[in-house]
Amino acid sequence: MASRTLLSPEEQTRQLASLNGWNIVDGAICKSFQFADFVTAWGFMSRVALLAQQMDHHPDWRNVYNRVEISLSTHSAGGITGMDIALATQIEQLEIG
Amino acid sequence: MASRTLLSPEEQTRQLASLNGWNIVDGAICKSFQFADFVTAWGFMSRVALLAQQMDHHPDWRNVYNRVEISLSTHSAGGITGMDIALATQIEQLEIG
Repeated sequence: MASRTLLSPEEQTRQLASLNGWNIVDGAICKSFQFADFVTAWGFMSRVALLAQQMDHHPDWRNVYNRVEISLSTHSAGGITGMDIALATQIEQLEIG
Repeated sequence: MASRTLLSPEEQTRQLASLNGWNIVDGAICKSFQFADFVTAWGFMSRVALLAQQMDHHPDWRNVYNRVEISLSTHSAGGITGMDIALATQIEQLEIG
């Protein structure tokens, strides 16, 4: 089970290396996704919404037509935790699956 | 059928008066919505997504847990048009219905 304890900067760097295209911005891990159109972007968002609800860990995200920007941090901890890495990892698997 | 022609400032003011709680920010009409939780916010977003796709007019929007911020403008026209007012009007009706 992923932890809601803050990751050290070294641990952030180490864990981010296992993900594809995520960057740290303002104390959160962020990635921009681009799809063919709104329908495809919304399909992706719907899958992320179900994951987020299941994990009880929700993204800060923005959508404009075919683009989705996701920002993950743990508000209760004030930064990046294992929960953010765990959700990002699950989102990565959606892209593949 | 709503038009994608830019509204004059006077027309923007007149049409905004028929809506509830929308403001003009950076050449778009904007409103923040707050719900009980993520599930309720996501339910609202899902209904807006279907409306937007049906109208072929999509929002710039952000969600954080139970909050949804919607910004509507018409990119092809470079500002606020009748399509934005039409979509905002439909969104208002979702809140009631």
